Amino acid sequence: MSRSIPDSLKAVLVVCDGLGDHPIPSLRGKTPLEAAQTPTLDQLAAEGATGLIHVIAPGIPPGSDTGHLALLGYDSSSCYTGRGPFEALGAGMRLHPTDIAFRGNFATVQCTTGQGCRVLDRRAGRRVPEGAKLVKLIDGLSLPSSPDIEVVVKHTVEHRCAVVLRGRNLSRQISDTDPHEQSLDVQESKPLDTSEAAQYTASLVNELTRAFYRILSASPLNAERRQAGLPEANIVLLRGAGTLPEIPSLHDLYGIRAACVAGGALYKGVARSVGMDILSVRGATARYDTDEVAKAKAAAKTLSKHDFVFLHFKPADSAAHDKNPQKKIEMIEKLDHLLSTLQKHVDKDNTFIALTADHSTSSLNGQHTGDPVPLLINGPRVRHDHVTQFSERACANGGLGHLVGKDLMPILMNYISRTPKYGA
Amino acid sequence: MSRSIPDSLKAVLVVCDGLGDHPIPSLRGKTPLEAAQTPTLDQLAAEGATGLIHVIAPGIPPGSDTGHLALLGYDSSSCYTGRGPFEALGAGMRLHPTDIAFRGNFATVQCTTGQGCRVLDRRAGRRVPEGAKLVKLIDGLSLPSSPDIEVVVKHTVEHRCAVVLRGRNLSRQISDTDPHEQSLDVQESKPLDTSEAAQYTASLVNELTRAFYRILSASPLNAERRQAGLPEANIVLLRGAGTLPEIPSLHDLYGIRAACVAGGALYKGVARSVGMDILSVRGATARYDTDEVAKAKAAAKTLSKHDFVFLHFKPADSAAHDKNPQKKIEMIEKLDHLLSTLQKHVDKDNTFIALTADHSTSSLNGQHTGDPVPLLINGPRVRHDHVTQFSERACANGGLGHLVGKDLMPILMNYISRTPKYGA
Repeated sequence: MSRSIPDSLKAVLVVCDGLGDHPIPSLRGKTPLEAAQTPTLDQLAAEGATGLIHVIAPGIPPGSDTGHLALLGYDSSSCYTGRGPFEALGAGMRLHPTDIAFRGNFATVQCTTGQGCRVLDRRAGRRVPEGAKLVKLIDGLSLPSSPDIEVVVKHTVEHRCAVVLRGRNLSRQISDTDPHEQSLDVQESKPLDTSEAAQYTASLVNELTRAFYRILSASPLNAERRQAGLPEANIVLLRGAGTLPEIPSLHDLYGIRAACVAGGALYKGVARSVGMDILSVRGATARYDTDEVAKAKAAAKTLSKHDFVFLHFKPADSAAHDKNPQKKIEMIEKLDHLLSTLQKHVDKDNTFIALTADHSTSSLNGQHTGDPVPLLINGPRVRHDHVTQFSERACANGGLGHLVGKDLMPILMNYISRTPKYGA
Repeated sequence: MSRSIPDSLKAVLVVCDGLGDHPIPSLRGKTPLEAAQTPTLDQLAAEGATGLIHVIAPGIPPGSDTGHLALLGYDSSSCYTGRGPFEALGAGMRLHPTDIAFRGNFATVQCTTGQGCRVLDRRAGRRVPEGAKLVKLIDGLSLPSSPDIEVVVKHTVEHRCAVVLRGRNLSRQISDTDPHEQSLDVQESKPLDTSEAAQYTASLVNELTRAFYRILSASPLNAERRQAGLPEANIVLLRGAGTLPEIPSLHDLYGIRAACVAGGALYKGVARSVGMDILSVRGATARYDTDEVAKAKAAAKTLSKHDFVFLHFKPADSAAHDKNPQKKIEMIEKLDHLLSTLQKHVDKDNTFIALTADHSTSSLNGQHTGDPVPLLINGPRVRHDHVTQFSERACANGGLGHLVGKDLMPILMNYISRTPKYGA
């Protein structure tokens, strides 16, 4: 393998979370992307090349973590152990190789003595401004059974936090306490293999979960939420146990300096796991109010120091999870504004802009689906095709064809002369 | 991996055996599918999404067994040992893990002492109404060299039967006695590895083949066939030695209740091997006279109890094997009638209909070919495309793109919310 001398070409990959969708009856059979007014996306498509991406494989609904790993060129089957470590990295935590990391959700539960705890709201109403204060109550707590085990908790965005267990003889082979659906009970964590470490870790997690409830439900912060008519954030549900992934960085693979602009912790975590610099952008909230102009400008600006920027845009996905296609349209129009800002601030002669999604999220059922997502690549060396609209259906006939997610990075890196030659 | 709560969505997969074809000069360069009048197929395509399927991989002619395994989502390279066990399962036999199963053909041979037996007709004229009676003569026969080996034979359709060897120290690593072409000699079965078991099994098969000829050629049933001017069914040719496949069921993989409507034993056998319920439908003969209305109604009716129905339609393939493109057109028009009946009897709001083929069969040379087959999927969540005709060429530009066979089930199961999410 050899590598040609790179010229000063740059690439920005914009990932619109959950962009693909189903045809929606209330939109006269259009998808939200088809129904939205997207002059910039359409222009970028018309002047660029388009295609479809099966992010994992045809028909497979991707998770947000595995979806992003695929778009960044990584095969989750060999590097993915669970969502937890990406949340922890995204929260800015340093992980040791033996740490077990979890994604945590502040949630609302109702516990009945001897009958377990019923989950009333898996996200405690999604708005948890007291998150950082609540985390202070449980970060560093000591488990009576295992005083040598360290518990580290960090709040990220809204109801989300990352939880790390640090110590000896821990295993990631344990099940979640999060039941993944409302109106079910908090689950007992169970060992997923026969090792002592898994049995020990599951018992720790169950002890920890009881401690979370005991401490949080007694907090005056929750008394205040109750008085304000808000659902209590009286437990942390854990899921996605995993360990630090050992994967080559983008710099190792392509010799590039890469940066990430994102609001959500998971996306920053995936970016950190592949060696990206994480830019701190004021107003990048991962919520509906995220500042798309600030994000676009930050991405364009850092191209003076970086060869590749991954820019994550979250709220279209949140709207689909909330089964709100009109809100999704609004967020896609916000994405259009992000791209028009980005386009104005980059040097068109040497910059490639790619836009795709990590998965489809259906505004009909609020779930990730396995339907493929549209892709556009715009830039100076692109063989532009006849497609003039950026949509799921229009891109199905684009010149880039139908790809799988992990094809994207070699294609992008090839445009900027960074994909190593295979053979001589 | 997690699975969202499935709603009550249903899917019917119609497989038209051997549907794809070559452009036929006598049809002015059209394929039989292009030349046939297919208003329902075209309407389903126009209102749905289309594509092409390379059932195994580009250019590879699929067998009927491996083709169906691929369309049902299974990788034959890890689960397929031979056609025999699927024929046996389809004939309703119970297989033990150590059984060696074969597909058998009643055939017409002419034997000359010391010079072997020449195959005059591999299918004994295809019409063998005495099949069940002839099988009684050889089912349970005892081999003088190995009285502990059980021989089980069961007739299925026309010239077809399934043969099972049951006992100790048997191997599937042996060659066929069927020469696979007319005018060649019945083959000696040979061991395909150096094991004693393979050597022993090959010698048993050769002894069994001689016994088949001795018993069948002496039968008064064949004297009657001779008198009626019919080719004798005086031997059973064996092929496709294999053992019971150990594969996860569709229920294991997708949590679905699945059913099969088919006339031919092989297709029922593949369906049984993946855990489907086999429906018994009067008039489903797998021949030209098969009752397409009864099959469609049975498939629609069982959707009240099943989430997924695999409906197999055989005679288009038989016509192509007989190098009769006009007959194939007639059978494709019968398929169109099947689909129009099916469409009338299912709930369009919650039912997906997919139509494809297990392989192309050329009406020019009568062989399976590696040309891809057309696919349509029609249903409430489908991103319909601009294709308005169901044919090999029109579907090549469809929105589903070009897929491989084992992509189909994840895609279909994704539509009915049954494909598990990969990641979190």
